[in-house]
Amino acid sequence: MAGRVTRARDVTVAEIGEDALVSRLVGLLPSTGRGVVAGPGDDCAVLRPGRSGWYDLFKTDCIVEGVHFLRETKPEKIGWKAMARVVSDIAAMGGLPGSAVVTLLLPPDWPVAAAEGIYRGIAKVARIFGVNVVGGETSAAAQAMLSVSMTGRVERDHCVLRSGGRAGDVLFVTGRLGGSLKGKHLTFEPRLAEARWLAEKWKPRAMMDLSDGLAKDLPRLAEASGVGFQVDPDTVPRTRGCTLAEALGDGEDYELLLAMASNVAGELEKAWKRKFSRLPLTRIGRLCPVVEKSTPLEGSGWEHFRK
Amino acid sequence: MAGRVTRARDVTVAEIGEDALVSRLVGLLPSTGRGVVAGPGDDCAVLRPGRSGWYDLFKTDCIVEGVHFLRETKPEKIGWKAMARVVSDIAAMGGLPGSAVVTLLLPPDWPVAAAEGIYRGIAKVARIFGVNVVGGETSAAAQAMLSVSMTGRVERDHCVLRSGGRAGDVLFVTGRLGGSLKGKHLTFEPRLAEARWLAEKWKPRAMMDLSDGLAKDLPRLAEASGVGFQVDPDTVPRTRGCTLAEALGDGEDYELLLAMASNVAGELEKAWKRKFSRLPLTRIGRLCPVVEKSTPLEGSGWEHFRK
Repeated sequence: MAGRVTRARDVTVAEIGEDALVSRLVGLLPSTGRGVVAGPGDDCAVLRPGRSGWYDLFKTDCIVEGVHFLRETKPEKIGWKAMARVVSDIAAMGGLPGSAVVTLLLPPDWPVAAAEGIYRGIAKVARIFGVNVVGGETSAAAQAMLSVSMTGRVERDHCVLRSGGRAGDVLFVTGRLGGSLKGKHLTFEPRLAEARWLAEKWKPRAMMDLSDGLAKDLPRLAEASGVGFQVDPDTVPRTRGCTLAEALGDGEDYELLLAMASNVAGELEKAWKRKFSRLPLTRIGRLCPVVEKSTPLEGSGWEHFRK
Repeated sequence: MAGRVTRARDVTVAEIGEDALVSRLVGLLPSTGRGVVAGPGDDCAVLRPGRSGWYDLFKTDCIVEGVHFLRETKPEKIGWKAMARVVSDIAAMGGLPGSAVVTLLLPPDWPVAAAEGIYRGIAKVARIFGVNVVGGETSAAAQAMLSVSMTGRVERDHCVLRSGGRAGDVLFVTGRLGGSLKGKHLTFEPRLAEARWLAEKWKPRAMMDLSDGLAKDLPRLAEASGVGFQVDPDTVPRTRGCTLAEALGDGEDYELLLAMASNVAGELEKAWKRKFSRLPLTRIGRLCPVVEKSTPLEGSGWEHFRK
């Protein structure tokens, strides 16, 4: 088909980048029905009716050989990563995971033992975080790829969107940022217990998990909330040995970013230390009116089509 | 990692084939909870609780460049095919589609217009069959791939599994089989209205959609039901110009295969002709006790890792 060959004037997906591509693609979809509380754009889709008093959550995510893992990566870690990323998204809504379906593409020359290793990693996440793996799909492909779609649920009162932040809210992140390629991107713990505790007891105004790096993800949260942000770079908690640029831009931290009403921020810090003494919760800045928007963050974050 | 390099004695996924691979992988998963009515192995997972009196359905499916479509395929047809395959699976349970999430992998040099064309095809299925597309994921990859995960629902009384067939049941297929690569594999109509009518009025004992070819799919239905099958090859409805081997083995028919109690088979045939006069419903054989199992079907059906 002549229309498919890239001609000099054809814009490629690499040229416009991931965010612009997604925005153009989502614009082509029919508007969703009244049952959709939050569609594309948050960590998960939020659907009603769930069970009485609950919303249903729905999320898909994939990891690709050469982009998110290497052929040499230990297979169990590939399975862990693919599942744990989606658990992290469900957690970021304040939710609990439910059922998952898994798609595994493999080059035909991969050893069966590697496929089994990937499934052992999947099974480990399923056991630890209470996910039912209820279906899957396999196909041959030139490149290995593992995609996970997961349902979840969250009490209507505890559902935390990206869009609820207000000017003046205090910004927090869990854990330490940066350096994920040294190994953390394959072994991270989704902050499910922490996010549930936050959603149940502290009602963050907005929350998301950091997958593309603070420099890219914080502007998304701020934009969804219709506000700007100010970050004190010195306060950003860095993984040992990481520069600020790495902490902002490496991505794949899978830590929580949250906006809290300022009048409860101090109280939360104290309660957090008692509850999760091994994991830091760090105040990094605040949301502000859009006109004050400032501190363009160093470090570009991850961009899938432009890398 | 030495363990990942294929050594002479390593069994590859191509050597054991898709069914054996899937069986080994599913065996590694933790057993699912009481909320799972049917896990891996049927057209969809069947989950409770859904809304009162209903089951939830959950299914994932993917299509890969070079396996299920070509780089030259019209983009809208790629989107149509990926979505319609999953609608077909939901239909085969007697169900109705709900929400979908979509993963699109694209080589960075693909034109944006092609990505948009794919989404137009997705949107068309969403509009026609009433699906809410509520999320998605994009990533760069060497090979284009489109994966769709979909939820659905079915009244508990109308849910049709593969496993309910009994010896003596009459086997029917809708439409005509074979020749899908001449174009039907990109433009087929999921039999949603037909399957709903069957599930609501006629309660098939077992039903599935034909994706890998009758020669491969009928043994799956029979095995799930714990019975054998006998097919009269002369009765298999063929697409014009197709041989019997093509009708049995080409795959990607997306027609329904169903097992009906023999005492209602004649009545169903008459009612079908009045209701769906343009689409044939053809009696092709019957289920039988396993000891009678016979007629190994010509035509091998599709095998993803062995092709």
